[in-house]
Amino acid sequence: MPVWSAVHAFGDHEEPARRLAEALGSDFRRIELRRFPDGESLVRIAPETGAAVIYCSLDHPNDRLVDLLLASSALRDSGVRSIVLVAPYLCYMRQDVAFQLGEAVSQRVVAGLLSDAFEGLVTVDPHLHRTHDLNSVFSIPVTQLSAALLLGRAITANNAGKDAVLVGPDWESRQWVETAAKASALDVLVGRKVRRGDRDVAIEIAGLDRVKGRTAVIVDDVVSSGSTVCAATRHLLDAGADRVELFATHMLSSGTDTAALHTAGVSRIVSTDSVRHATNKIHLAPLLAEALRMGIE
Amino acid sequence: MPVWSAVHAFGDHEEPARRLAEALGSDFRRIELRRFPDGESLVRIAPETGAAVIYCSLDHPNDRLVDLLLASSALRDSGVRSIVLVAPYLCYMRQDVAFQLGEAVSQRVVAGLLSDAFEGLVTVDPHLHRTHDLNSVFSIPVTQLSAALLLGRAITANNAGKDAVLVGPDWESRQWVETAAKASALDVLVGRKVRRGDRDVAIEIAGLDRVKGRTAVIVDDVVSSGSTVCAATRHLLDAGADRVELFATHMLSSGTDTAALHTAGVSRIVSTDSVRHATNKIHLAPLLAEALRMGIE
Repeated sequence: MPVWSAVHAFGDHEEPARRLAEALGSDFRRIELRRFPDGESLVRIAPETGAAVIYCSLDHPNDRLVDLLLASSALRDSGVRSIVLVAPYLCYMRQDVAFQLGEAVSQRVVAGLLSDAFEGLVTVDPHLHRTHDLNSVFSIPVTQLSAALLLGRAITANNAGKDAVLVGPDWESRQWVETAAKASALDVLVGRKVRRGDRDVAIEIAGLDRVKGRTAVIVDDVVSSGSTVCAATRHLLDAGADRVELFATHMLSSGTDTAALHTAGVSRIVSTDSVRHATNKIHLAPLLAEALRMGIE
Repeated sequence: MPVWSAVHAFGDHEEPARRLAEALGSDFRRIELRRFPDGESLVRIAPETGAAVIYCSLDHPNDRLVDLLLASSALRDSGVRSIVLVAPYLCYMRQDVAFQLGEAVSQRVVAGLLSDAFEGLVTVDPHLHRTHDLNSVFSIPVTQLSAALLLGRAITANNAGKDAVLVGPDWESRQWVETAAKASALDVLVGRKVRRGDRDVAIEIAGLDRVKGRTAVIVDDVVSSGSTVCAATRHLLDAGADRVELFATHMLSSGTDTAALHTAGVSRIVSTDSVRHATNKIHLAPLLAEALRMGIE
């Protein structure tokens, strides 16, 4: 069992990183970040030796990636021999091939940068399309965790005694939604998605008549613009659902997009603390700490 | 003499990159950049083989660095065997040591990223403090050009027949200002700077009485917040200068900071097109093309 000297994080990740440090029984150390007027960053870590954890979720990633590489380098300069990155949300995982001639395969580029800077990576519900195991893309060991069971338990706790139906918005989410359903012992419906643009999505849900008079709980790994969830919500309400809720691992939606979800008819939104969001209710710290305690496999 | 198949650049660098392509007699190719709602980038290059140039000035660098690494990777995937980066403004060159315990040495980190992604680098007036030769930091050949002579010639052209004095704001700029003076055959004064914060700078200029009744032209490699130039301008006007002008290689100042320069009494600002700015008047393309034609040394 590895001993982590501390969990380091930037100020905007202080709360979840402190929870992780507490779950691990180690210290929390804040990474200081100063931005110069010309847009450059000055990064300063609390010096230490031994094995360190950096907690850094990688939503809105471009700025963060540079700051993170600076933090990793500073920790190494101070004498740390091994650094594991805990990135509950991992960026650039969708672009795993060039869909059009000349496109950058950003998954591979980002995996290369992170593999050079860390000895291991722990992440949660990576939004993969064709890649199934991140260990084929990263040259460091990657632990892929799933928040499906945690979401399932939270859905049960929030809908005690109600005859709710879980709805996975697309076919790729089927297995994952079924795992959530195991924890909640609820019915499952799975949709099929046709994406026409960043914000233009059509969706079909087989067996839609089963939601009539019941609470439909949409479960998804990542909610970004929210177009998919909006489309699904309209279908569910049209089919007579009593109420629509959304439970998600990574809630990336802007304030405007979140408001649009409520306007479309979503009554309640619950997310994990993977990405800082007003809807955060589920803490990932116990899940992350367990993986770190077992070592990187 | 190397043959460059094309100069590639993102849309916001299209104008100076087209001028460079023209000076080299090669094609210009626009790098397409799309931002997803979640902050990720999709980068697409025009596929080619052979030896390519990417033109990308690195002001406000964090976003740009990631996009640039993606563009380099995409060019390589398409069959390019060698890529030279032309970055007239090079970021993160000041932080070449940890001034305080735990600080990231960002110069080294950024040099490592760029050395991995390119075969050569051409830059102009890098804002170095303790490092004198970038070839000691980068593992690829770096050509460091200077715009001092171009600035000197522009000063002469703009102040024909006037008895102007060149003013270097700090001791480190002395040699550089003297080079500019060679082209303009003008007097030179050099200041000494005491920095108390990002925007709080005191300055002393020896021989200040020589500016009385004359035009003082402040010449600087980088103008960021502009505090140094503001402080120098006040001294020069207090000492009886008739008029104060500013000629700079890299003009990084925001609109507000540029307005503050005029408020402080700067009558005219002229910069090179290294960083896109309303004051751009001097094109670096001939200088950059000459260096590329001679190969990376």
